[in-house]
Amino acid sequence: MSGKNFGGNYFEDFRVGQVLNHATPRTVTVGDASLYTALYGTRFAVNSSDEFARSIGLERSPVDDLLAFHMVFGKTVPDVSLNAVANLGYANGLFGVPVYPGDTVTTTSTVTGLKQNSNGRTGVVYVNSVGRNQRGEVVLDYTRWVMVNKGDMDAPEPDAVLPELPTAVPAESLVLPDLTLGAYDRALAGSEFGWDDYEIGEQIDHVDGMTIEEAEHQLATRLYQNTAKVHFDQFAANAGRFKRRLIYGGHIISLARALSFNGLANAFKVLAINAGSHANPTFAGDTIYAYSEVLDKFEIPDSSDVGALRLRLVATKDRPAGDFPYKGDDNKYDPSVVLDFDYTVALPR
Amino acid sequence: MSGKNFGGNYFEDFRVGQVLNHATPRTVTVGDASLYTALYGTRFAVNSSDEFARSIGLERSPVDDLLAFHMVFGKTVPDVSLNAVANLGYANGLFGVPVYPGDTVTTTSTVTGLKQNSNGRTGVVYVNSVGRNQRGEVVLDYTRWVMVNKGDMDAPEPDAVLPELPTAVPAESLVLPDLTLGAYDRALAGSEFGWDDYEIGEQIDHVDGMTIEEAEHQLATRLYQNTAKVHFDQFAANAGRFKRRLIYGGHIISLARALSFNGLANAFKVLAINAGSHANPTFAGDTIYAYSEVLDKFEIPDSSDVGALRLRLVATKDRPAGDFPYKGDDNKYDPSVVLDFDYTVALPR
Amino acid sequence: MSGKNFGGNYFEDFRVGQVLNHATPRTVTVGDASLYTALYGTRFAVNSSDEFARSIGLERSPVDDLLAFHMVFGKTVPDVSLNAVANLGYANGLFGVPVYPGDTVTTTSTVTGLKQNSNGRTGVVYVNSVGRNQRGEVVLDYTRWVMVNKGDMDAPEPDAVLPELPTAVPAESLVLPDLTLGAYDRALAGSEFGWDDYEIGEQIDHVDGMTIEEAEHQLATRLYQNTAKVHFDQFAANAGRFKRRLIYGGHIISLARALSFNGLANAFKVLAINAGSHANPTFAGDTIYAYSEVLDKFEIPDSSDVGALRLRLVATKDRPAGDFPYKGDDNKYDPSVVLDFDYTVALPR
Repeated sequence: MSGKNFGGNYFEDFRVGQVLNHATPRTVTVGDASLYTALYGTRFAVNSSDEFARSIGLERSPVDDLLAFHMVFGKTVPDVSLNAVANLGYANGLFGVPVYPGDTVTTTSTVTGLKQNSNGRTGVVYVNSVGRNQRGEVVLDYTRWVMVNKGDMDAPEPDAVLPELPTAVPAESLVLPDLTLGAYDRALAGSEFGWDDYEIGEQIDHVDGMTIEEAEHQLATRLYQNTAKVHFDQFAANAGRFKRRLIYGGHIISLARALSFNGLANAFKVLAINAGSHANPTFAGDTIYAYSEVLDKFEIPDSSDVGALRLRLVATKDRPAGDFPYKGDDNKYDPSVVLDFDYTVALPR
Repeated sequence: MSGKNFGGNYFEDFRVGQVLNHATPRTVTVGDASLYTALYGTRFAVNSSDEFARSIGLERSPVDDLLAFHMVFGKTVPDVSLNAVANLGYANGLFGVPVYPGDTVTTTSTVTGLKQNSNGRTGVVYVNSVGRNQRGEVVLDYTRWVMVNKGDMDAPEPDAVLPELPTAVPAESLVLPDLTLGAYDRALAGSEFGWDDYEIGEQIDHVDGMTIEEAEHQLATRLYQNTAKVHFDQFAANAGRFKRRLIYGGHIISLARALSFNGLANAFKVLAINAGSHANPTFAGDTIYAYSEVLDKFEIPDSSDVGALRLRLVATKDRPAGDFPYKGDDNKYDPSVVLDFDYTVALPR
Repeated sequence: MSGKNFGGNYFEDFRVGQVLNHATPRTVTVGDASLYTALYGTRFAVNSSDEFARSIGLERSPVDDLLAFHMVFGKTVPDVSLNAVANLGYANGLFGVPVYPGDTVTTTSTVTGLKQNSNGRTGVVYVNSVGRNQRGEVVLDYTRWVMVNKGDMDAPEPDAVLPELPTAVPAESLVLPDLTLGAYDRALAGSEFGWDDYEIGEQIDHVDGMTIEEAEHQLATRLYQNTAKVHFDQFAANAGRFKRRLIYGGHIISLARALSFNGLANAFKVLAINAGSHANPTFAGDTIYAYSEVLDKFEIPDSSDVGALRLRLVATKDRPAGDFPYKGDDNKYDPSVVLDFDYTVALPR
């Protein structure tokens, strides 16, 4: 038996301050962008048309911001979450420079928090992950925390360290490329509604539903080189709790974001991920619907022609979202809710 | 409840002469071309090999003409057929300049006909759709007509207007790029048979069958950014007539065209779509077969080394097509027939 | 009925020395590379990152060597194995220059052996297939042999000719591009273990399992323009022996190779295919596991910083491979074994 394979880190293998240089840098290409469109049907003009992207001052169409997110996230899985029980949350996610086809993204993580659970069998690991392009420019910087199994139940409990994380990424931190929005064509973008037209508290049903097939979520998750076995191995799943392959949570985020085009077509750029929770698991055969709620609305410093919306993007399964299901009186998620995603987008004013 | 989402136009929303500037211009890439190959297994050498394309005078491999068709068609769906009951027909479809990877296609439609049905609940809408590249050159110009629901049953019946449409695109309208066919290599192209070898009335069985999976047609239809919900939403379909997701008709056209390589390997370019009917619906699990019949054969003005064939491409489901099923004595389609597609192709002479 | 379609060659159609110029040259693109990643989840850094590839002296990321293999193999199917009963083996497979996105591969085969089976209904055909890029440089040269049906049972039995084939491609034949491995970053590549760390006889469990869906293997096989109908036609399969679509054997090779990253992350280049057997058929729903055994270890002439491992890559279905199942006392494969693949890889020393 060789020790050359790697079974992933267990809770006791992590130390606060530990740096994880993740393997498999990834050149992102137009091939990845095409697959992303095929997987989610996304229609945002900036990511669909080089000409449209150039009309607002970009060099060409950047890939979807969430594709960049998945590429970074995927690389962290072998080192961070191979023995994870659950992906608990996201915070302080800041998108930096756009990722263009041809760019190569490399990801590094730092352990920023640790807390063993009272059952003594698991613990929560906080990691700050940073993806950089070939010039060392940050493309994404975010924190997630996961519940990870202990491998050795007798390993000592570490001192609990919890990182300080903001409720939302503040306006002054947001990064926007140099844009010339004078030529932004709302008809081509698909909606007349700009930043000025949205109000805090407004809810928008995104109407359409999308049923997920096993082949689809597997293709997606492999494209991101995310190796979490729960997404791929039906033989192992047969002996597990759900008897099904679990769909990568990021797949739901991308589906919901693509559906959100119908009502938010001008939300052309994801600026930040403030928080996120996968409220319920999803499986092949589930039909995903989505709605958005405007949580906040603010100007972006030094950007007179772009404004930011902080949105709650909620995805449901097997239930159209026109009545905006969320949480019950007990503060628990409605059973139909599978995603509660708090993020910030840019729209032309 | 927000009014920012869009539920599509109803019959009473259309006016003859109305221009629809469709959203989401689309840069077509080698990623799209690869997916097209993966979805249909097409083998035409001009679209498969940059070297082959250059040998006949093109700058590189253009994408499959039908991929260009789907990209244009997809963009019209949100404005034209989101509330359609059925896609009734195609006519006068003319392919212009080739679409090369990197080209950006933008689509505009004009309403050219309207006729309310006698039931008062639906009507037929004719649209002429034109896709143009970033230089404004036409890549595809075609008319389709769809049966669309009325949203308001009390909306007044418009004057009936029916556009004049040719039975087939005439030879003098066909557009062929500048080609130097002297170096066209029939062995590399896969067949010794050129234009001179085909005869009017000849029928060609394409032999092979291809079974369609849900993931495949969904990937295809999303790649084209076609948003018709009947293709994606199983939850909604459970309450509908078929209880199944309906496969986008264009998926069948592309499958049948790819199968037609076996017998028409040198039909390297689609010049025109003369007519088309989706004779029966198709669903995941169906196995598609195809045959062709030569309807006409003619020279192309100013092209001494290329000739045109007008073909009827018939696709069947769950029935090999070697006995050429078509219509019964009652002039109704055989139940196995799912596509009756009348189009014009170019072959070397 | 037209004679323009092609039903493939039968055993009696082959002659020793016959040259088959296969149709459909193929420009390989980043779109193909993305699909390859999406289909198998491969993570080798050289193929994933242009920057990593450049750091070791390549012009950019070449496509996975097995993608090149599939592209060459696929082209041979219409002429060689459309009427095959079984793909019996591979030998003497030598990879030449890398295939970069944009390269066009054209494939030619020579019949090197023929032997009719004693049943008089089938025979074995040996073909040496060579794929070349647009500069005529060899990218792959290999021999396979297939059992092919006779079409005419009365066709005379040819003289038996069996080509001489080596047990393994010798070290002096191996082709390695000019590399500067001083900057090879093992952390980015995903493992600290180099050539010096492996020992003959060592077995490595690759741990993870991957369940295959119909859509996935169909997409893959069409991407390679492999037209063998057993992979695609469920209607025909219903009347056959297995009642299922058979998965292309090469799909299993690629899955197993991708899984082998976990334990062989620095095996960055496939140099040779020595032998291969598809021990049992695979079908959608099967979960594939894999392990490797080091069969041999040797230096590569004129390459002081790279060494070669000859590996046996074994894939199983619906059985984790941690106990290394292989053959029983009767020398027959364990029923869980689906692939026995003998190949040679390069690792940094």
